[in-house]
Amino acid sequence: MSFNIALGSRVRKSPFHDSTVQAGVTMFSIYNHMYMPVSYGDLEGEYWRLIEGVSMWDVAAERQVQLEGPDAGKLAQYLTPRNLSKLRIGVAMYLPMCDHQGVLINDPILLKLSEDRFWFSIADTDMIYWVKAVAAEAGYDVVVTEPDVSLLAVQGPKAVDVIADLFGDQVRKMRYFHFTETQLDGIPLVLARTGWSKQGGFELFLQDGSKGNELWDIVAQAGKLHDIGPGTPNYIERVESALLSHGGDNDPESSPFEFDLGRYVDLDQKADFIGKQALKKIAAEGPPRKQIGIFIEGSEIFFNEHPWPLYHGDRDVGKATVACYSPRLKKNIALALVSVDVLGERELTVETPEGRRNAVITEIPFF
Amino acid sequence: MSFNIALGSRVRKSPFHDSTVQAGVTMFSIYNHMYMPVSYGDLEGEYWRLIEGVSMWDVAAERQVQLEGPDAGKLAQYLTPRNLSKLRIGVAMYLPMCDHQGVLINDPILLKLSEDRFWFSIADTDMIYWVKAVAAEAGYDVVVTEPDVSLLAVQGPKAVDVIADLFGDQVRKMRYFHFTETQLDGIPLVLARTGWSKQGGFELFLQDGSKGNELWDIVAQAGKLHDIGPGTPNYIERVESALLSHGGDNDPESSPFEFDLGRYVDLDQKADFIGKQALKKIAAEGPPRKQIGIFIEGSEIFFNEHPWPLYHGDRDVGKATVACYSPRLKKNIALALVSVDVLGERELTVETPEGRRNAVITEIPFF
Repeated sequence: MSFNIALGSRVRKSPFHDSTVQAGVTMFSIYNHMYMPVSYGDLEGEYWRLIEGVSMWDVAAERQVQLEGPDAGKLAQYLTPRNLSKLRIGVAMYLPMCDHQGVLINDPILLKLSEDRFWFSIADTDMIYWVKAVAAEAGYDVVVTEPDVSLLAVQGPKAVDVIADLFGDQVRKMRYFHFTETQLDGIPLVLARTGWSKQGGFELFLQDGSKGNELWDIVAQAGKLHDIGPGTPNYIERVESALLSHGGDNDPESSPFEFDLGRYVDLDQKADFIGKQALKKIAAEGPPRKQIGIFIEGSEIFFNEHPWPLYHGDRDVGKATVACYSPRLKKNIALALVSVDVLGERELTVETPEGRRNAVITEIPFF
Repeated sequence: MSFNIALGSRVRKSPFHDSTVQAGVTMFSIYNHMYMPVSYGDLEGEYWRLIEGVSMWDVAAERQVQLEGPDAGKLAQYLTPRNLSKLRIGVAMYLPMCDHQGVLINDPILLKLSEDRFWFSIADTDMIYWVKAVAAEAGYDVVVTEPDVSLLAVQGPKAVDVIADLFGDQVRKMRYFHFTETQLDGIPLVLARTGWSKQGGFELFLQDGSKGNELWDIVAQAGKLHDIGPGTPNYIERVESALLSHGGDNDPESSPFEFDLGRYVDLDQKADFIGKQALKKIAAEGPPRKQIGIFIEGSEIFFNEHPWPLYHGDRDVGKATVACYSPRLKKNIALALVSVDVLGERELTVETPEGRRNAVITEIPFF
């Protein structure tokens, strides 16, 4: 079953939009009120390009929430359970954001641009309203905005060669999660060694939305030598790598402890943060669910339209949130959120639209 | 140019989803993290059905933010510039929500279910985080949740006949924006005389997401006598009626005073509300922009993918946010946001993808 997506002014176009259309994008989702390319029509080819070569992605939909002002650092810390005391300028951190009940409400990376300027680079929810409300009602001296910043990702093992051709060989020494403010042919941007894949790469935080297609062309041109091609956040690779898709894998009952994110919750730090008391209670009791991996038997799974219920015997024990066929493992794999009481088990069944199938619990990430 | 929409578990399916697929939906948007049908493939037929007959819409994506607790009423008032002192149980109000700078951040209707329980029925932004943050940081004794409530709209001049067949003739006397908690074949719902069209009608606030397709079938069956058919929030009718599409017509600079919503801002009320000082300043200075209507010359306009720039002579004076051909007026019409200094003018030009066209300023609504 396939459907068209409506185009209209309620949803924003990315600064790279026209370039992605020219490059042959076939499918979009909407993410942070912006059209986000999710396929160019060759899912497996795009996968192998990311695994073995280099791929360029319009991920402008990963919007920034900027905190600027004397209390920016204090507010940033109040907004996350991760301990930011050692975060230096020029470094980013991946972290959970929680509400006052300890529910996971976003999993951004945080970039410290200066002592009084930070960007939360956010997943798909309007965190700007959350941050604005907290800042204003709790009295932080901070201005909260969505700046004109749009991400172009260059991902894959050969990404470093493309970026070195563009910015010089010193980028080869950049450490993971480090970034620098720079420019390319006069286009202002932040170059960061980050990205939503485990294949290595960089993200260009374009700081002038009018230059999107120009930046796209520069990268595409430099990438030709390395056989760069258009791609998107990759459905298969992210399952293999067990990268969290906020809102897909977690739900409004989830704490960070249900995911690998739990290790970024520092309950012992001196600083106060939203959800501290609630998270202490959840940590003491243990989270009721955990994310696991499963192998699913039977014919190749293309994708799942919605979470598939999981059973142990006849008992509903959770859901497979995302499933696919892994070309490297040559097996169907899935991420699942299950009751902790089945963690000792080996076999479950999963309800697919074509009927129940056997599933075997395994560890994640798959790679 | 048309593109597919990705289906996956990050975006929720409405409780009516399977019914809409069976009814032949062809196009979706994503709204409040949910797939929302926007066409069944016959835009003009769907328009005339709404204008002359009766149409049923899956608008589950219009999610509710529920305030429950002793301070629910106080918090509801703090969240809007509209004066709620006369809002009675069983009545809804359309109202602006603003941030502390007076920027319009949502235009929900608010339903007062009891003295300590309210629903904001929200447009496309995650107001739940805004409301949660305000409640927690400002210390209101309120629990904020997204309840299991999904809207099915029945709209058009014959909607009242369908609803009367289902609920009895007393619904004919229901006043606009009044609602009642009731049930249909045991399915719990709120029946409200509301809807995002000016053709009259009702909305069924389904309170059990597992009964979506059952409710759809009951309404479709009862509607047969009146030739009901599937529809969606109607692109053309909403332009003719100048109904605000939040995020489409307004932008992050907009105050309510740029729109008809300004008349719901009560700056003289005793109660405090978010943005009061900022809105007083904007009111005193006058808003820099206003929404107007324009007629656009030339061949029939199907829709606009993004806002089109507007010029007075060579000067950029704003944007046409939504444009279409009106079958009733037999003219191209558009809503536009322009600098107040062109309000006395008559003619503008609009930059469409096919070149500039003449446009004539007119009053709204068109009907």
